[in-house]
Amino acid sequence: MLREAIYHRPKQNWAYSYDKKTVHLRVRTKRGDAGQVRAIVGDKYAWDQTVKSVEMRRFASDDLFDYWEVAVEPPFRRLRYAFHFIKGEEELFLTEKEFRKTPPADPLELFDFPYINPADVFEPPAWVKDAVFYQIFPERFANGDPSLDPEGVEPWGGKPTPTNFFGGDLQGVLDHLDHLEGLGVNAIYFTPLFEATTNHKYDTRDYMKVDPHFGTNAKLKELVDACHRRGIRVLLDAVFNHAGRTFPPFVDVLEKGAESPYAGWFHVREFPLQVVDGIPTYETFAFEPIMPKLNTENPEVKKYLLDVARYWIEEIGIDGWRLDVANEVDHAFWREFRQTVKAAKPDAYILGEIWHDSIPWLQGDQFDAVMNYPFTNAVLDFFAKETIDAAGFANAIGKQLAAYPQQVNETAFNLLDSHDTPRLLTQCGDDERRMRLAALFQLTYPGTPCIYYGDEFGMSGEGDPDCRKCMVWDEKEQNREMFDFYRRTIALRKKHPALREIGLRFLQAEEGGRTLVYERRSAKGERFVVAMNASGREAKVSVSAEGKWVDAYSGEAAEIARGRLGATLPAYGFAVWKQV
Amino acid sequence: MLREAIYHRPKQNWAYSYDKKTVHLRVRTKRGDAGQVRAIVGDKYAWDQTVKSVEMRRFASDDLFDYWEVAVEPPFRRLRYAFHFIKGEEELFLTEKEFRKTPPADPLELFDFPYINPADVFEPPAWVKDAVFYQIFPERFANGDPSLDPEGVEPWGGKPTPTNFFGGDLQGVLDHLDHLEGLGVNAIYFTPLFEATTNHKYDTRDYMKVDPHFGTNAKLKELVDACHRRGIRVLLDAVFNHAGRTFPPFVDVLEKGAESPYAGWFHVREFPLQVVDGIPTYETFAFEPIMPKLNTENPEVKKYLLDVARYWIEEIGIDGWRLDVANEVDHAFWREFRQTVKAAKPDAYILGEIWHDSIPWLQGDQFDAVMNYPFTNAVLDFFAKETIDAAGFANAIGKQLAAYPQQVNETAFNLLDSHDTPRLLTQCGDDERRMRLAALFQLTYPGTPCIYYGDEFGMSGEGDPDCRKCMVWDEKEQNREMFDFYRRTIALRKKHPALREIGLRFLQAEEGGRTLVYERRSAKGERFVVAMNASGREAKVSVSAEGKWVDAYSGEAAEIARGRLGATLPAYGFAVWKQV
Repeated sequence: MLREAIYHRPKQNWAYSYDKKTVHLRVRTKRGDAGQVRAIVGDKYAWDQTVKSVEMRRFASDDLFDYWEVAVEPPFRRLRYAFHFIKGEEELFLTEKEFRKTPPADPLELFDFPYINPADVFEPPAWVKDAVFYQIFPERFANGDPSLDPEGVEPWGGKPTPTNFFGGDLQGVLDHLDHLEGLGVNAIYFTPLFEATTNHKYDTRDYMKVDPHFGTNAKLKELVDACHRRGIRVLLDAVFNHAGRTFPPFVDVLEKGAESPYAGWFHVREFPLQVVDGIPTYETFAFEPIMPKLNTENPEVKKYLLDVARYWIEEIGIDGWRLDVANEVDHAFWREFRQTVKAAKPDAYILGEIWHDSIPWLQGDQFDAVMNYPFTNAVLDFFAKETIDAAGFANAIGKQLAAYPQQVNETAFNLLDSHDTPRLLTQCGDDERRMRLAALFQLTYPGTPCIYYGDEFGMSGEGDPDCRKCMVWDEKEQNREMFDFYRRTIALRKKHPALREIGLRFLQAEEGGRTLVYERRSAKGERFVVAMNASGREAKVSVSAEGKWVDAYSGEAAEIARGRLGATLPAYGFAVWKQV
Repeated sequence: MLREAIYHRPKQNWAYSYDKKTVHLRVRTKRGDAGQVRAIVGDKYAWDQTVKSVEMRRFASDDLFDYWEVAVEPPFRRLRYAFHFIKGEEELFLTEKEFRKTPPADPLELFDFPYINPADVFEPPAWVKDAVFYQIFPERFANGDPSLDPEGVEPWGGKPTPTNFFGGDLQGVLDHLDHLEGLGVNAIYFTPLFEATTNHKYDTRDYMKVDPHFGTNAKLKELVDACHRRGIRVLLDAVFNHAGRTFPPFVDVLEKGAESPYAGWFHVREFPLQVVDGIPTYETFAFEPIMPKLNTENPEVKKYLLDVARYWIEEIGIDGWRLDVANEVDHAFWREFRQTVKAAKPDAYILGEIWHDSIPWLQGDQFDAVMNYPFTNAVLDFFAKETIDAAGFANAIGKQLAAYPQQVNETAFNLLDSHDTPRLLTQCGDDERRMRLAALFQLTYPGTPCIYYGDEFGMSGEGDPDCRKCMVWDEKEQNREMFDFYRRTIALRKKHPALREIGLRFLQAEEGGRTLVYERRSAKGERFVVAMNASGREAKVSVSAEGKWVDAYSGEAAEIARGRLGATLPAYGFAVWKQV
């Protein structure tokens, strides 16, 4: 067996408490290398009396590795363990100290999971596993109260520029809650609502006040209450990495320099604050002078922002926060943030904007989830850009499932587009069929899917600002077929735990292939098979499947011939079958 | 190149801030596989203008892998990066997304070190790098005040049992500070001093009071002050995982069961508290009924213990805490503990007792160091038990240096024995020569060495209780030669940064070999070569060495013949040369 490929290091995604009584152990081997992998587990203070060997399950694979997992419930909440690899006649053991040909003798040389302390168990809010999110860019969703329109507002449906306004507001969202409920989503993520100068509001002036062009704090409370009555949760955007140019403490520092009582609120390299050769003399988001980076280590800043975090939960009733540029803020701040937020609302959802590998933030002390762009990229690479084959896609998904603890995968925020990317349809070359395949995968995958406003009507758009077009409310311009696809698929997901739970197994994903077949299975035994033809040519699929199956959408019996479930899928066609 | 062997994941020991302006990047390859490894680095918001390629240095190797490192100072505190492996004509690139044959094109696919936030930078106290610790088990060090002796105290020097007493106390330590200063140590770690029933005091009755058999709080303050006047720092043992059977809150729960106001201070599986079939109905250290596990998530317990942590620093002036059974207490508690301790004394040292891989506690938010038993084991395996060869030893050391950030290696607490293990001399089969080699390695290795009381006089002892014998104060029974060896070697270490700093390179460590030669080098260019013959037969060593060299102990010129430094080392002999 290839020793160099084998990897395990306690905690992170390799040994973690899944809940207050269960530890998940994982280990990695070279793909195809081990026939069987076992874990040798016991209590460290009673090793000889408690030691046992348990079989691990290969739960994911990528291009290089197989990943193995087992759930263990140590009776005294502490666990010592080793791994046992079997390949034909060859046996190999791994302890913390070394590889061995023989079973480990000295328990002190084993790996150690010292204790399941409830305070350290990472339990994201339970509701998130069942949520379907909808992202709203408020300036462009609906204009419900023209009296609030900014000066120079342009007619709804015009061409978005980086700086123009169309008058979207909170009343507009209130007016369209029927639409959201009809679509079936049960959570909204709003990009920033607080007072700011830009149309995107990422340059906050006042963290305690809804932007007057959107409405008032009272109007937001009315909206949140209305959402809650419909079973819809609400997430706001916390832009805590940086403030805006008009944020009063920053204005004060601009004016008074080092003499300002707020000088310590920012990271100033050199007074006065100015831009020299395109580079601000103070730290900012990117090199953007209107977005001065906040010094989140300053106790006053910390208190101010944590008060903000608390206010909107306690007074307005929001259900969590999406954290902008989350990875550029210190871990220490986010730990206090989590404590503050969870004290105010224990099941609040904390979602970080991180585009990269995010394991340091997903250990239970900081975020519940991150915006899962690696998922986005894998889906787009396969379905939209067609730069990878079915095997490459399955490998990318397997790599992700292996990279995080199970609870992270269960509540990952799986988006396919956003206000920061081109729209899904546009990425799919305006091919609705490819868009549907991508969305179907998203909606039958674990984690919480998020739909960017307007995708359900087949809206298109290149990158910012084009992806921030006004929502299409004229029914004649809406793609009703797309809406129907989303509505029905969301309904399927909400009805069937198998389409939300963690169990996903690829049945067909070949090198060079563009046919993808996977099984979805719930803990209670519900089973689905999803088949997709991600190519421009008709394709036959056939998978072994015992028992009776139906088309999940229509309920019509599926054809089973000689124990196989099959169909001829048209170009970019799909089938979703359910065992009955 | 073997892709399966290559490993990198941001943060932990792979990408971390070494100080407020420097990021260390590391990556792993199969041993001997890559001829050169480079890092491609730049600012994520100005990639094209800032990208550059920097060479990485192979800083450690073990049996399977080479480990490469480079220090980077990103001008705007943020870093995006990839790796570039070169093996003859073969080139390979690694991004966060994938292995590539060609340089990465899309900066979004690179690895990301988002920001050096000072709050997250792990900077252990600077003094620890230069400290030589001395561990005192107070009941057995010296009896300076017989009026405090426990009832039934036995004559000094008798045979230790798990339960007997010999009357050691704080006055005894005060009386012997000349000895410690003469030996050259500059820090003491005391096993528990607080009131308890046992001789080891790990079953605390009162965390706010020195055990009356040891003295008073005032006496401890006198001792700490006296130590400080001599430049000796003092570390106490915080037994926060569990209390003792006589701890009043526990006594109350024993008496009143669930009705006790302290019921929530412990982890009770079932009332009443009792032992059924050898297993307490409440959680304990191991299965030890007299050591009930404290519920460190309970706010009252937390407040109580954090007050304790603060009291001994602020009122008595101690310089840090050694944390007993540290890995069984929740991370959340230790984070608050660190904040409390560092607020009270910013350069206090926080040392966790963890026998295993400890990376989750060594990220800057919890401990400064752990008791480095993996180091202990490697040294004992090679020098004492002779179960591994020189190559195996170099590999074990390389593996450890690679496993942690540099600042962790610089302040690792490197012990060779303790009150929990047999004594070093005994582990060496009572062979003083082997003991000296082990100690010489310890005292010429980065990190902070710790000497267990009495080792300097060649005391022997099997495991607990035999390793807790009374200190030998009768000069006729002291091994003065051993003392002299320790004294002179400590003096060398303290005089020469090269013997303390991180730069260690093995020059000779062959498979099957028992000759070990390594170079020690300081940032300022000071150079030493240490040669050891860890075998029972005479051995010749010869290493290429330019310039002039002296014996580091005697200052006598070393013989250089044809550009080589050499000597014939007797069985278990050694030489320490210094370049002049």
